[in-house]
Amino acid sequence: MTTLSAVEPRRVRRATMGDVARLAGVSIKTVSRVVNDEPGVHPATAARVVACIEQLGFRRHLGARDLRRGSSSKTIGLVLEDVANPFSSVLTRAVEEAARARGWHVLTGSSDAQPSRERELAVEFCARRVDGLLVVPAGGQHGYLAAEMRTGTPVVFLDRPAGDVVADTVLVDNAGGTAAAVRHLHAHGHRRIAFLGDAPQIFTAAERLRGFREGCARAGLGWDDELVVMGPHDAPGAARALARVCGGERPATAVIAGNNRITVHVLRALAGAAARPALVGFDDFELADLVDPPVTVLAHDTAAMGRAAMELLFARLDGDSGPPRRVVLPVRLVPRGSGELPCR
Amino acid sequence: MTTLSAVEPRRVRRATMGDVARLAGVSIKTVSRVVNDEPGVHPATAARVVACIEQLGFRRHLGARDLRRGSSSKTIGLVLEDVANPFSSVLTRAVEEAARARGWHVLTGSSDAQPSRERELAVEFCARRVDGLLVVPAGGQHGYLAAEMRTGTPVVFLDRPAGDVVADTVLVDNAGGTAAAVRHLHAHGHRRIAFLGDAPQIFTAAERLRGFREGCARAGLGWDDELVVMGPHDAPGAARALARVCGGERPATAVIAGNNRITVHVLRALAGAAARPALVGFDDFELADLVDPPVTVLAHDTAAMGRAAMELLFARLDGDSGPPRRVVLPVRLVPRGSGELPCR
Repeated sequence: MTTLSAVEPRRVRRATMGDVARLAGVSIKTVSRVVNDEPGVHPATAARVVACIEQLGFRRHLGARDLRRGSSSKTIGLVLEDVANPFSSVLTRAVEEAARARGWHVLTGSSDAQPSRERELAVEFCARRVDGLLVVPAGGQHGYLAAEMRTGTPVVFLDRPAGDVVADTVLVDNAGGTAAAVRHLHAHGHRRIAFLGDAPQIFTAAERLRGFREGCARAGLGWDDELVVMGPHDAPGAARALARVCGGERPATAVIAGNNRITVHVLRALAGAAARPALVGFDDFELADLVDPPVTVLAHDTAAMGRAAMELLFARLDGDSGPPRRVVLPVRLVPRGSGELPCR
Repeated sequence: MTTLSAVEPRRVRRATMGDVARLAGVSIKTVSRVVNDEPGVHPATAARVVACIEQLGFRRHLGARDLRRGSSSKTIGLVLEDVANPFSSVLTRAVEEAARARGWHVLTGSSDAQPSRERELAVEFCARRVDGLLVVPAGGQHGYLAAEMRTGTPVVFLDRPAGDVVADTVLVDNAGGTAAAVRHLHAHGHRRIAFLGDAPQIFTAAERLRGFREGCARAGLGWDDELVVMGPHDAPGAARALARVCGGERPATAVIAGNNRITVHVLRALAGAAARPALVGFDDFELADLVDPPVTVLAHDTAAMGRAAMELLFARLDGDSGPPRRVVLPVRLVPRGSGELPCR
């Protein structure tokens, strides 16, 4: 795949900013300043750094910067699914804060989970010469970014990995989290545990389903297809799925909701119900502790995801040319009541 | 005040885009295209429009545009209080959508309710030559924007009016909403109604308090200072305020919470309480219908606020040079249960 090879680390190791700094006897920050044409470097020092860069053949980011010289926008482009949803807005805030620490700003756009809109936003942001791009992927094809990445614009993917390019990525431990939920419910006596997940072509949904399978296998629970309902769930769809897994001859006594939207739909469907299954929801949400019973969730730190992505991005801008990195953030189970209901 | 006069409509009426359009026999959109140097206008038509502009002395926005010619960033700057809170993020989404319809993008920044940070963000956005600025004011002084406004950058204030400049503003009917809540609670038999509001130097908090006073007066309820607790409320502070108004010899039987944060704090403080006051919260919030009892709120359309602000902004960019406008959006009471508890 040409798009893959374009961003894979080359076999011949090129000099890094660290090499230049060592040779010139200055800090990496100083090299970065020279490369990025920032003030605060004594002219003689700058000349020495430039000489060392030439000697070592440190090209990649300098070349990229050269192409863009004078046009740095000190702006990060952030492609979200929907800035109005809490995951996206908390992420935006964390990215804003990290950008601010460097005197940069953030352009945001919402893809509405449409791959074409994601691409449109990413391409427009690049046309505005953003210095870096953060993408919560809506689609699975990102070859359209390969040329931009090659000319030195760092791209970091969040929440889901990129398709057909290799790039820095920050994820949460989707599979580990769901497996922990199965373990928790099993420990509270449940043997019929259902999983209501999002559409399985979505990376996070597929990973959470994988964790559910692994959790069931480890707990020695037999697999039952009837207990799994995947697909995008609106409120009536979630209610139907819940009725299906909790009905019949061998009803589920516990339910794992695959994301915070599904959890809320399930809560609405259960409102006023006499008998409730135990419930663990993936993703925390405000007021989870105020509904009755309070909702046990699989929580992860969305702001930390934004910060980690910006660290990866700034490292690239500062000259890190190592192979793409994948950061996986932990997920922890927060028991609040709904997940500790006994099996009746 | 010089900053005021700088943005007040001048006494001599200048020609508007509408005048130019009428004289040239073209649409306002066509005039706008010519003024903004956009494609899609036949050269002969463009020449006629330019001649008409010269004849009528239509200067203001053309002059402003001239100053900025070639530097339009097709970007709107949006200064929020905190993009991570739902009000800000829903607003951002609406602004994004309106900008998108014109092929523009949005830079966002969070002031954290600090006037110095608001100013820093607004000034930075202007330095980046945003084509327009939307500001949810943190402070009460906006003279620092007068020069920018004079050179043709439209600024619209949201949720709270600007201090010391006159500008387009979009608000919600804060006073009317709170007065309606008092009327509603009074109709359900309550005579001791408390108001827990935000710090009174905040415009929205002061307006809501004014509505509370008016509502009490209209309902014939005597005024009792003991029933009003203003100030920024964290969770313990709100709990203390609630204990104060609902304790003593003549306890409140109903409470109006002055914003969605205070409502949530009150709900937390009431969790597990045997006797509950009736409750109406200003601002709707997700899951308000899922707590027990479901929360009666004063709802307003945050997305509509973003759309209205963008309409004002684009009208200015299209040449509207009329006096500053103030749009006030309605607030409606959504009865869900907590506000319909009888007086015991």
